Amino acid sequence: MKNAIARLKEELIDAAKILSREELVRGFGHVSARLPDTKRFLLTPRVSLALVKAKELLLMDFDGRVVEGGTTPPFEAALHAAIYRHKPNVHAVTRIHARKANYFSVTKTIILPVHNHGSFFSGGVPVFKKTPLISTRQLADEVANLLENRPAVLLRGNGQVTVGRSVAEAVMMAIYLEEAADMLHGALQLGEPIFLGEEESGLGKKETLPPVDLERAWNYYKSRSQEKTKPQRK
Amino acid sequence: MKNAIARLKEELIDAAKILSREELVRGFGHVSARLPDTKRFLLTPRVSLALVKAKELLLMDFDGRVVEGGTTPPFEAALHAAIYRHKPNVHAVTRIHARKANYFSVTKTIILPVHNHGSFFSGGVPVFKKTPLISTRQLADEVANLLENRPAVLLRGNGQVTVGRSVAEAVMMAIYLEEAADMLHGALQLGEPIFLGEEESGLGKKETLPPVDLERAWNYYKSRSQEKTKPQRK
Amino acid sequence: MKNAIARLKEELIDAAKILSREELVRGFGHVSARLPDTKRFLLTPRVSLALVKAKELLLMDFDGRVVEGGTTPPFEAALHAAIYRHKPNVHAVTRIHARKANYFSVTKTIILPVHNHGSFFSGGVPVFKKTPLISTRQLADEVANLLENRPAVLLRGNGQVTVGRSVAEAVMMAIYLEEAADMLHGALQLGEPIFLGEEESGLGKKETLPPVDLERAWNYYKSRSQEKTKPQRK
Amino acid sequence: MKNAIARLKEELIDAAKILSREELVRGFGHVSARLPDTKRFLLTPRVSLALVKAKELLLMDFDGRVVEGGTTPPFEAALHAAIYRHKPNVHAVTRIHARKANYFSVTKTIILPVHNHGSFFSGGVPVFKKTPLISTRQLADEVANLLENRPAVLLRGNGQVTVGRSVAEAVMMAIYLEEAADMLHGALQLGEPIFLGEEESGLGKKETLPPVDLERAWNYYKSRSQEKTKPQRK
Repeated sequence: MKNAIARLKEELIDAAKILSREELVRGFGHVSARLPDTKRFLLTPRVSLALVKAKELLLMDFDGRVVEGGTTPPFEAALHAAIYRHKPNVHAVTRIHARKANYFSVTKTIILPVHNHGSFFSGGVPVFKKTPLISTRQLADEVANLLENRPAVLLRGNGQVTVGRSVAEAVMMAIYLEEAADMLHGALQLGEPIFLGEEESGLGKKETLPPVDLERAWNYYKSRSQEKTKPQRK
Repeated sequence: MKNAIARLKEELIDAAKILSREELVRGFGHVSARLPDTKRFLLTPRVSLALVKAKELLLMDFDGRVVEGGTTPPFEAALHAAIYRHKPNVHAVTRIHARKANYFSVTKTIILPVHNHGSFFSGGVPVFKKTPLISTRQLADEVANLLENRPAVLLRGNGQVTVGRSVAEAVMMAIYLEEAADMLHGALQLGEPIFLGEEESGLGKKETLPPVDLERAWNYYKSRSQEKTKPQRK
Repeated sequence: MKNAIARLKEELIDAAKILSREELVRGFGHVSARLPDTKRFLLTPRVSLALVKAKELLLMDFDGRVVEGGTTPPFEAALHAAIYRHKPNVHAVTRIHARKANYFSVTKTIILPVHNHGSFFSGGVPVFKKTPLISTRQLADEVANLLENRPAVLLRGNGQVTVGRSVAEAVMMAIYLEEAADMLHGALQLGEPIFLGEEESGLGKKETLPPVDLERAWNYYKSRSQEKTKPQRK
Repeated sequence: MKNAIARLKEELIDAAKILSREELVRGFGHVSARLPDTKRFLLTPRVSLALVKAKELLLMDFDGRVVEGGTTPPFEAALHAAIYRHKPNVHAVTRIHARKANYFSVTKTIILPVHNHGSFFSGGVPVFKKTPLISTRQLADEVANLLENRPAVLLRGNGQVTVGRSVAEAVMMAIYLEEAADMLHGALQLGEPIFLGEEESGLGKKETLPPVDLERAWNYYKSRSQEKTKPQRK
């Protein structure tokens, strides 16, 4: 168990660096992972994902309370707790601020898929209309409810939530959500987009992220996140 | 007092590197900080913010004259002086050239908030219509007057001024002004934006930048600004 | 022959790093080269082009089967095989996911040339409308058929195929396809584009990529791809 | 004289690195400088500006012929020669491929100034409509003629020419031309731009690039161009 937790912590830190490198977060945002077969999850604290360390990760219960750890939890811990409580298949949650997906959240244009990696968002990404931070159990339940069995929800003018059956999958949903937003934004400037049909999306989902490709994508983005040079003082 | 000044100088240099790293300045621009309980402020000289050093900072009086320092003051020193003279709560001023905020300054479209970090600009960012550099006391007073108690003013076709109760706050207002401009620019390409209501903006202001988050954001952007590799000769 | 193969492998790895550095692939995609005077080609395996190594390259036959190599071939190996089978003049194939060219593939706007490097795409880049991965011989034959004697085909919502008489040429066609898409996308936001006439395109083709310039461009992009700093662990 | 030539060569190499770092060239393009009080100029050869070395610079005469040097001159040497022949005040010429300025060259929208650094382009940047490379004396004379006493000309779908009274000035005209194109492109997406009036432009020209600011800008961009890490082999 000890080793499993250590590995999960390492994965979460990798996720934090990837989300930061891809600029899906800029100083804020958080990411969490369910501790298998418990009512606990690991959560990044109120520290930039670019800078957070494994020893700073918090162990949280499903009421959003700190069980173990000396750092301050994010204001929206309740959001992660609610998702784990309501969605037994979800094993990881990202709370990000992807720029182009954010554009859509403040207009009436729905993110619908036009390209292969957009398939996961077939049927459209719902927008949570209320703007306060998701800091109460009630707001958190409402977001979890809106999510249903989808991989992502937009929070109006305040970023996104993505989920997955693993840390890698939740992170890839974050990356592909922004990619889907970018694709649709770019296409809309050229004219009427040709959306993927339902059958095409279904096929896309099956084809684009089998385990071998999930690992391939994860390795690529992890490698990118580690390319940075060491910070150096002036 | 000596140590307080040394710390303030270090903060100003950090601010200069951050504004440069985020490309809110490209060779030009300046940033200043009030010396608490005096009629003096520290100001970056006529040197690129990417390259300026602590020992080059100028000590200025509220008439925009150099009190101490061997470098040349920027042409717009009067602008900083006027703001400190008129706004006792302002402790730092940035004079930047953010690209997307600049787009708005040359059209009739007002920057109004659509997202959480836009809340600070509730009511719209005013545009100073005259185009000369703000090098006279009269022009400087006019800009200070237009600023009122807002965090930012656009100068038509020539960048922006942002202010804060601390160096970190003035810098974050610069970053969030550009983020608000980017959000609105991106959303306008999709259709009619859904602006934040006044109540939503009020809530946003309260929630998005409490001291702990200001420090968090500052640490993130400071760390990014230090990631660069050492310049090396051909 | 040994040396020729070793050189070709090195070229393919250079191509993989260039396509990755230019973000024409992000974790996925593949690139291949015909083994001169044989019915064999070298192909990158199911590994990110940013990370793939020479020893992982696969030797494939024209039925898309692995002849030599211990890694897993990409799902779309059949596509490369079909192109080499049908196009004796093609010596290299890239399978990429260029972002702006992808925008065009999901609208009715055709990529037609407006600038010198667009000349190669005179007459327009055709779009393959079916969305499944090109994993069967039949789909692969259809794509090869659509390609005719052109340098590029768009796959709807799923990237592009480019070909060339050498690895360098196939890579430059990938770079210039995305450049042509960017040019047209940017121009369309300003008004009616002035397309290159047929005669102008013919002239452009002749002038813009003679061997000396192909080598010059290749050296430039190869150098850029090697500028990255060494990955370093947290 | 020897030292003056060595210094000029160093400046040209700095210019080449700056233009490459700012992505105003990507593998192609060239830059030249008049040898004061002679009918000669120094010109970069048919080598990427990112990679060119001082010892590869060519000494050219005003007929576009190589006087000294072992490298191949660019196809458009005649263009530089014609400008030096016709414009005694021009001491440096850049031949670049700036992306956003290029968008304008293939539409009927003229680059007119909306912001301070756009002032130099008051009255609009003319477009040379013919598309062949400027490789003959006649075409070169036509471009020089179109340039008149302006700092820049667009070549339809094939980049730009900028000139200056010094290498630094020609380079800054290249940077500010692209900045002016970006400003106008971004503003046009928001609505009707407010152009600078003639008087405002005149004021801008006088204010924005006095020698001290030219040096400041040059130092900034030169420093940026040297930040790259050393290329390293796979």
